[in-house]
Amino acid sequence: MSDDPRSFWAWGLTERLPDAAARRALARRVGAALGVGDLPDIPPPDIDAVSLRPPRVRAPASLAGFVTDAREDRLRHTYGRGWRDILRALQGDFSPAPDLVAYPRDEAEVSAAMAWCAEAGAALVPWGGGTSVVGGVEAEVSPRWAGALALDLRRMARVHDVDVANLTSRIGAGATGPAIDAALARSGHTLRHYPQSYEFSTLGGWIATRAGGHFATGYTRIDDRVQSVRVVSPSGAWETPAVPSSGAGPDPKRLALGSEGALGVITEAVVRVLPRPRWRRSASARFDAMEQAVSAARAVAQSGLLPSNCRVLDPTEAFINRVDDAAGGAALLLGFESADHDPESAMARALEIALAHGGECPRGVLARDDAGDDGSAAAQWRRAFLDGPYLQSALALVGVMADTFETCCAWSAFEALHRDVVSAVSEALAEHCGGGVVSCRFTHVYPDGPAPYYSFIGRYEPSRALAQWAAVKRAASDALRAHGATITHHHAVGRTHRPWYDGERPALFADALRAVKRTLDPAGVMNPGVLLRE
Amino acid sequence: MSDDPRSFWAWGLTERLPDAAARRALARRVGAALGVGDLPDIPPPDIDAVSLRPPRVRAPASLAGFVTDAREDRLRHTYGRGWRDILRALQGDFSPAPDLVAYPRDEAEVSAAMAWCAEAGAALVPWGGGTSVVGGVEAEVSPRWAGALALDLRRMARVHDVDVANLTSRIGAGATGPAIDAALARSGHTLRHYPQSYEFSTLGGWIATRAGGHFATGYTRIDDRVQSVRVVSPSGAWETPAVPSSGAGPDPKRLALGSEGALGVITEAVVRVLPRPRWRRSASARFDAMEQAVSAARAVAQSGLLPSNCRVLDPTEAFINRVDDAAGGAALLLGFESADHDPESAMARALEIALAHGGECPRGVLARDDAGDDGSAAAQWRRAFLDGPYLQSALALVGVMADTFETCCAWSAFEALHRDVVSAVSEALAEHCGGGVVSCRFTHVYPDGPAPYYSFIGRYEPSRALAQWAAVKRAASDALRAHGATITHHHAVGRTHRPWYDGERPALFADALRAVKRTLDPAGVMNPGVLLRE
Repeated sequence: MSDDPRSFWAWGLTERLPDAAARRALARRVGAALGVGDLPDIPPPDIDAVSLRPPRVRAPASLAGFVTDAREDRLRHTYGRGWRDILRALQGDFSPAPDLVAYPRDEAEVSAAMAWCAEAGAALVPWGGGTSVVGGVEAEVSPRWAGALALDLRRMARVHDVDVANLTSRIGAGATGPAIDAALARSGHTLRHYPQSYEFSTLGGWIATRAGGHFATGYTRIDDRVQSVRVVSPSGAWETPAVPSSGAGPDPKRLALGSEGALGVITEAVVRVLPRPRWRRSASARFDAMEQAVSAARAVAQSGLLPSNCRVLDPTEAFINRVDDAAGGAALLLGFESADHDPESAMARALEIALAHGGECPRGVLARDDAGDDGSAAAQWRRAFLDGPYLQSALALVGVMADTFETCCAWSAFEALHRDVVSAVSEALAEHCGGGVVSCRFTHVYPDGPAPYYSFIGRYEPSRALAQWAAVKRAASDALRAHGATITHHHAVGRTHRPWYDGERPALFADALRAVKRTLDPAGVMNPGVLLRE
Repeated sequence: MSDDPRSFWAWGLTERLPDAAARRALARRVGAALGVGDLPDIPPPDIDAVSLRPPRVRAPASLAGFVTDAREDRLRHTYGRGWRDILRALQGDFSPAPDLVAYPRDEAEVSAAMAWCAEAGAALVPWGGGTSVVGGVEAEVSPRWAGALALDLRRMARVHDVDVANLTSRIGAGATGPAIDAALARSGHTLRHYPQSYEFSTLGGWIATRAGGHFATGYTRIDDRVQSVRVVSPSGAWETPAVPSSGAGPDPKRLALGSEGALGVITEAVVRVLPRPRWRRSASARFDAMEQAVSAARAVAQSGLLPSNCRVLDPTEAFINRVDDAAGGAALLLGFESADHDPESAMARALEIALAHGGECPRGVLARDDAGDDGSAAAQWRRAFLDGPYLQSALALVGVMADTFETCCAWSAFEALHRDVVSAVSEALAEHCGGGVVSCRFTHVYPDGPAPYYSFIGRYEPSRALAQWAAVKRAASDALRAHGATITHHHAVGRTHRPWYDGERPALFADALRAVKRTLDPAGVMNPGVLLRE
């Protein structure tokens, strides 16, 4: 895997990381924006200079066909792509590296790896795109484990078929977003599920983490796109019935959705696909105050119009993401799309609602009938959205910490929550980083409340960077939980959110989940420490 | 409870059962329709003549305030309202009657009843509206139980509040459909969840059985209306976080949805409410052939238009339900509603799709702006829909068995499934009942498939009625499972569907559910035999 175009330490493709000149330019720009002096220039790590502990366990001959202990494979399966991951990798710390990496070609090999782990006392960490931002794919396990094996699903990534009559497709869990859409495009279909990790993350990872997607309302997460799912657990394989809907008992699918690799490995799923949209209409409204944009978003979310896009950006987000229409105010981005009809009247009504809440929309409704870029605020925002993770990695090279967290709450709870979150994070940034910036947008909206998404940046000191980050993260997470908001709307729990998840989740549900884990994973080898305390 | 206006043996209000003259008229009409000779006149049972086994267990003094062993309470908590229930009650067989009936006023009394059951070795059967058609509320438990207690939630039925900003309401599980809507109507809101049992069934029952509701697309079942739920289990009470959406692990709510009383008692829930619709548009298209109506329904279900109504009626259903527009053909009923905007363009597009698939619509689109009856095919259908269960009971009095079953399958699977189901049921009716009629409608449609709903009628002989019914039910259920269709889209599993559910559900999921039950209900007292074999 040494010809991998992906960076071994940062987000995305190595070629898209800034060179020395680009780093200097970034440092000047961000230094000015933060109102601080010179920012450092931190060279990217050298893969050959990283030191790595020898494997603590060896794979038996029976697994030799698909398991390796090669240095680079282990390095590349050490971390997800959260801030903490990027920072540790940048600093050359790969201490939680797994001892082995498996690339199974079929379910028999998945089962064989599991059986060996149970026998050898090794932890098994399922691996999709490796884009977790919550420590979900890191073998940070207790010393009672003899070692750890990362199980990478990339070879089980086939798009088996597209069932045009039923708009479904059976797809291997290791398929990435672009691979899925390329296969579906051949018959004019699409999954239209675009988490920010889209370029690299996989169907199995989306299901395991209940990933949020493209649509701001209605079908917001992958849950709604899954018709059935196959799981290989240490106790055996199981597949949920492939029917559109059933009322027969608790839905078995829901045990796979959000299981984060702790109950088994998702190997494939039948998903619901869509014909590619032919009509798109969008508009962005500007508001003097964030509160007005929030009221407008609430009214649209409760209108039953179900826009594909309904995203509030606070003034800082609008500025950072170059949504020019906002001009210093907050923005509400609205969009509708359809393969069947021009969503003209729905768009008009949504915009009417936004204007009635104090919005201005000098450019009016923009229409386009293909996938091209229309120069709209939504398109500007989309480019910035996919570039976001690249920027985070680049900022690490100029001494700037950048991270995000997200939640979901009732509409009536947002104002106080927002005030306290912004103040807690700002204070933590001031105390630990000498200042910083916090911004907010809504990624999804429901009739009963929004999903606010926060970004923060501040300077970091290499010698105490993890502690600085942990202090800010703790301030944010404590503030969310103090208001009863969820610790995560779509980033999952992993190891990072577990302490707050433990408080959010009903205790008896935790007991039930523990009982399920004992049943499906008697030796407890599956991603230990995720969802449940080891 | 002896002033109960509900029949102790039949569906609904006693005053709506046919008197002798009405029975004779019904016998003539149905006899002619079935093409058989004279139908019998079976007098309704006399409550005072029913014999009842003495209670096998007695409640301790500590439960005296809310537990009774009064004869009528026990009689009225013996059966749901499936065909099998109505027939046994009509014949005076109340042998599965519970020994005790509890009417708890709060969660402490619910817990006390559970604790006593575990101690006394009595089974506990949670009781909402008592409208189960699948043996879900019947204390048909194994002899290892010392007795059985029915726990009726009618006293925990408060609509606590309506949160107008967030469009949510906290409601006691024992609240019935009309009680909920009456309370919500005061602020202009509605739940808009109308199972056929609406008049009597309860919020807790809907959640426990994942009831299907009003909307044919989009939010089809109560699952989507539940923001959070409280459950009292023998191991304690738990409540899911009241947030609009969370990605933190498997959704705890999903363990309550469909739990059918086997894991605990649902005591209250926060549900999503809607502003009352102000605009409604509807149309009914007629098709020469059922296949055309199915194609049209599929195209509408895949259009993204999300109609509130999109119901196919085969020619027999259209005739029985007096949908005059259908005139011997199949019908597709389409409807849109909104509190925010006139759904004119969506309705026009849906009708355009129907016409493109061979439909005719001489009356065009009908509009109305209040809750009144517009004389439309949809309104005719709605009246017949709510009268359906009354008719079933009335038919029992003229020697006619009438029952329904429902499923869900892929669009491409429907044709063969339908053919085999109709032929299996017709053959069973011919063999066991000397003939009969089978009809089909779609109650809900998804982009990936419809939810077909079948009704059948045939004569029964009182001396072997249960065996006749069991033979037809078995033929239907076997045909569904042979095609991989679900044993139930929205009638739940109960005791009637358990054998087929056992085959449909992944075996490892059953093991997981068993582990959950052991955790939440260590003594196994909760509705034994439902979901899991005793």
